[in-house]
Amino acid sequence: MGKDAEVAEKGEFSTKDYHDPPPTPLIDIEELTKWSFYRALIAEFIATLLFLYITVLTVIGYKSQTDPTLNNTDQCGGVGVLGIAWAFGGMIFVLVYCTAGISGGHINPAVTFGLFLARKVSLIRAVMYMVAQCLGAICGVGLVKAFQKSYFVRYGGGANELQVGYSKGTGLAAEIIGTFVLVYTVFSATDPKRNARDSHIPVLAPLPIGFAVFMVHLATIPITGTGINPARSFGAAVIYNTDKAWDDQWIFWVGPFIGAAIAAFYHQFVLRAAAIKALGSFRSSQHV
Amino acid sequence: MGKDAEVAEKGEFSTKDYHDPPPTPLIDIEELTKWSFYRALIAEFIATLLFLYITVLTVIGYKSQTDPTLNNTDQCGGVGVLGIAWAFGGMIFVLVYCTAGISGGHINPAVTFGLFLARKVSLIRAVMYMVAQCLGAICGVGLVKAFQKSYFVRYGGGANELQVGYSKGTGLAAEIIGTFVLVYTVFSATDPKRNARDSHIPVLAPLPIGFAVFMVHLATIPITGTGINPARSFGAAVIYNTDKAWDDQWIFWVGPFIGAAIAAFYHQFVLRAAAIKALGSFRSSQHV
Amino acid sequence: MGKDAEVAEKGEFSTKDYHDPPPTPLIDIEELTKWSFYRALIAEFIATLLFLYITVLTVIGYKSQTDPTLNNTDQCGGVGVLGIAWAFGGMIFVLVYCTAGISGGHINPAVTFGLFLARKVSLIRAVMYMVAQCLGAICGVGLVKAFQKSYFVRYGGGANELQVGYSKGTGLAAEIIGTFVLVYTVFSATDPKRNARDSHIPVLAPLPIGFAVFMVHLATIPITGTGINPARSFGAAVIYNTDKAWDDQWIFWVGPFIGAAIAAFYHQFVLRAAAIKALGSFRSSQHV
Amino acid sequence: MGKDAEVAEKGEFSTKDYHDPPPTPLIDIEELTKWSFYRALIAEFIATLLFLYITVLTVIGYKSQTDPTLNNTDQCGGVGVLGIAWAFGGMIFVLVYCTAGISGGHINPAVTFGLFLARKVSLIRAVMYMVAQCLGAICGVGLVKAFQKSYFVRYGGGANELQVGYSKGTGLAAEIIGTFVLVYTVFSATDPKRNARDSHIPVLAPLPIGFAVFMVHLATIPITGTGINPARSFGAAVIYNTDKAWDDQWIFWVGPFIGAAIAAFYHQFVLRAAAIKALGSFRSSQHV
Repeated sequence: MGKDAEVAEKGEFSTKDYHDPPPTPLIDIEELTKWSFYRALIAEFIATLLFLYITVLTVIGYKSQTDPTLNNTDQCGGVGVLGIAWAFGGMIFVLVYCTAGISGGHINPAVTFGLFLARKVSLIRAVMYMVAQCLGAICGVGLVKAFQKSYFVRYGGGANELQVGYSKGTGLAAEIIGTFVLVYTVFSATDPKRNARDSHIPVLAPLPIGFAVFMVHLATIPITGTGINPARSFGAAVIYNTDKAWDDQWIFWVGPFIGAAIAAFYHQFVLRAAAIKALGSFRSSQHV
Repeated sequence: MGKDAEVAEKGEFSTKDYHDPPPTPLIDIEELTKWSFYRALIAEFIATLLFLYITVLTVIGYKSQTDPTLNNTDQCGGVGVLGIAWAFGGMIFVLVYCTAGISGGHINPAVTFGLFLARKVSLIRAVMYMVAQCLGAICGVGLVKAFQKSYFVRYGGGANELQVGYSKGTGLAAEIIGTFVLVYTVFSATDPKRNARDSHIPVLAPLPIGFAVFMVHLATIPITGTGINPARSFGAAVIYNTDKAWDDQWIFWVGPFIGAAIAAFYHQFVLRAAAIKALGSFRSSQHV
Repeated sequence: MGKDAEVAEKGEFSTKDYHDPPPTPLIDIEELTKWSFYRALIAEFIATLLFLYITVLTVIGYKSQTDPTLNNTDQCGGVGVLGIAWAFGGMIFVLVYCTAGISGGHINPAVTFGLFLARKVSLIRAVMYMVAQCLGAICGVGLVKAFQKSYFVRYGGGANELQVGYSKGTGLAAEIIGTFVLVYTVFSATDPKRNARDSHIPVLAPLPIGFAVFMVHLATIPITGTGINPARSFGAAVIYNTDKAWDDQWIFWVGPFIGAAIAAFYHQFVLRAAAIKALGSFRSSQHV
Repeated sequence: MGKDAEVAEKGEFSTKDYHDPPPTPLIDIEELTKWSFYRALIAEFIATLLFLYITVLTVIGYKSQTDPTLNNTDQCGGVGVLGIAWAFGGMIFVLVYCTAGISGGHINPAVTFGLFLARKVSLIRAVMYMVAQCLGAICGVGLVKAFQKSYFVRYGGGANELQVGYSKGTGLAAEIIGTFVLVYTVFSATDPKRNARDSHIPVLAPLPIGFAVFMVHLATIPITGTGINPARSFGAAVIYNTDKAWDDQWIFWVGPFIGAAIAAFYHQFVLRAAAIKALGSFRSSQHV
């Protein structure tokens, strides 16, 4: 297996069998004139709506089934924390698979931010995606509240909050590392260098991306309920709307954005050695 | 990832590398003369039978193992709600994989209805598939009842019923959105535009379709027991045969059919922009 | 999706893009002279050994962790019935993936029997595979007993036995249908007609096969503990060696073999319409 | 399926359609001069860090949620042993997928050792990988301890220890067989003979490798907590730092290395019949 790395290395500096796409311009007015741009926004909106609807419904349903004060005969009856982690990871797998060809399948402002830093989406697309994702998340959680208002309020509305016994620093660090795992997987799975050699990688990419989300939920649900997706945290906070949810909200924006930035840096400058190339292009541009 | 959408867009209006098959005629007498048509009906019948047999047996077995009145020493002994959700999702994965090449792997009247609306199957094939699916479902649940009659009746026969505390409107909405998730995944995973670029998508399609079913069950088992498949609900109601199961039955037909119709509309007219093309073909046909 | 079936049909009777391999001779002395034959036997032996080792160890470990008489503080501590079902299904996925290129990845006398009936393996290979599988199963369960003798005897040794409240007829029927699901999946996933169109199907085949095993275990663990693999039942019975395990043993040979035979018949004569071809070849051979 | 083996056999001795890469030299000074070598070390370090961080956090979080002395209302609330097994297997799937193209995706000194024995990595690369993996593991567990110091110490720090009631010999044997399952899967999934026929096998390989880890954890968590990865055991022992963890530490180095060696031997000399070829090359070299 170690040989692969060397072959890849040789390929990188001599005869490349792939092309990195040129960096996307920061502002691309032309894309605003295309139906595909608005279609992508609709797809992001619908996907984030479905993501929050299914996952928050799973969280609320689990808590209502295992509440000991409701005189439940079966306290093991719900889907469990494992089921909740599956709901988040599995929905990301399904939705990335469905929307990859339409919008790129971000469904998460942190992913959009990471891809923007790597110059894979324009600034205007990044901002509009985030707006669509947040609106979708609000609608998705709103649907859950409309379905079961009493349960929704009683069981915390699926909102991300720092759990008792953990400091703000710990929560922030957990969000940073969790988002790093996710965005690092996104970069690895959609690397154009890799795609060139193996044309069906994009088809398989949703599975490891979904699993990365599943894994992070297993680990950090006891700490923060697991955000790693600012739209998810924001949508739940807007609908649940308590002081505690809003007080901790900044953690679920700052943490994921820092984690995504580190993952973008790690992939572009360490794994892809973009620093050397960037230096080269800097020199060239000086002479022009 | 954002680039994909643009490339796809350009492909769509200039040099298409794929062909949408022409709409299937509403009534195609010729297909009635082919063995492949009857083979597809047999495959749908057997697949739906196996689907209901495995899943309802899992539901009944779980409830019998965790019944506190049976003096069980281990109330957490069964497969859990998570196991039930896996049974439904996993069987759909296996059966769609097995029957995709024979019948298209619908195993669900709502899927057949959605594909009929998108003109991918003829009316006569759609109706016959639904009949085969309902008969298969009845036989599958019947087998479970034959195996364990006392447990079957005591534990609700796997029938879909609105749970205590939820209104009919909530149940209907849950079925609509749940079926939308499933049929949207089916359309995305089997899109001919996508297949043309990546020939093995149809092979991978069963996995996200199965996961979509798994996800919806995690979320809505506490509300309706999760139908999203009229044949599944009908088969269980016929064999269990109580007033409650029949009173709620309409929810499990109307909901899935509305959800499938919205998914077909969303995919054909929003994501694929068929409206523009349809308008074009409307104008052309006026001149003929 | 319905279109696929028709295309396939046309392909079948006019211009076939695939070749069914000729039936394997019943007795092929030449294969006994090849190293690859003995290598395949070793691979089947090792794979069945690992299968039983991992799965029975999971069963015994689960029961020891949740035994209320051991004063466990945590009765939900074990992997659960869901974990046991995953162990069986997951190991089949891994082992079929690993041995498919060496021995065909049967790891189950019922699968070997089904493939023999479809004339895909010779009689001598089928018999030798079954012997290797049974020996492997005995060694695998033996290892578990050597590791934890007291637990092994106390918790039933992973042996398949009819559970209280189920008749012999129900157990037999459960084994027949369960094995049908498995062998039908094996035939569908490895169909040469399918492989010709999509060369990587054999690579993906282990996943649905493993899931089929997982599903059947979810459904029938409460009835028989789930055999659907005579080597698995035989190996556990030899090492556990109680009257009850031996009294029920016939169910776990007769059931799987009937189920495999029905699956072979269903795939070859219904789905592949081999009856018509067989009739054709019968007529031809009369004239020779 | 049995036919495959024969075709493969013929291919092996007559017209090979694949090339085994030549054995890697024991010491390759040149690779020390390449950026790709150091990049691979960084990738192994980061991957092992993330692996330990996510998995040990899952273990500690589960134990804190289900501790009866903490007056938990819901003793079944955690992710369960099944969730822990998923965390280990799922992270290996994700990380092998992400790092396969950079470092080969070992993330485990036992895998590195097995590939070194098969002469697929040089001695110097093998040693440096193991150092990077152990350092990564220490940092990963250290992060968990920094996050939740009181829980970490109270719940065993995720350290591998022989459980009560099992002898050292049993623990060692469990580690040997468990690592054999893992390394055998690694060899089968990355076999160059297989890759030549089916170019996307390397892409699919991470899934069975991850499942192999998942399966071994299901089976042996009750015995040793499951090591099968010396870096994982070493990192946890360094941070947890109790006598018991250090006393048992040798089991988690000797066991995995023996298991990896047996798997390398089994794959190279039994399944690939390298013995015959080795003998041939021995004769040739005598004449030189």
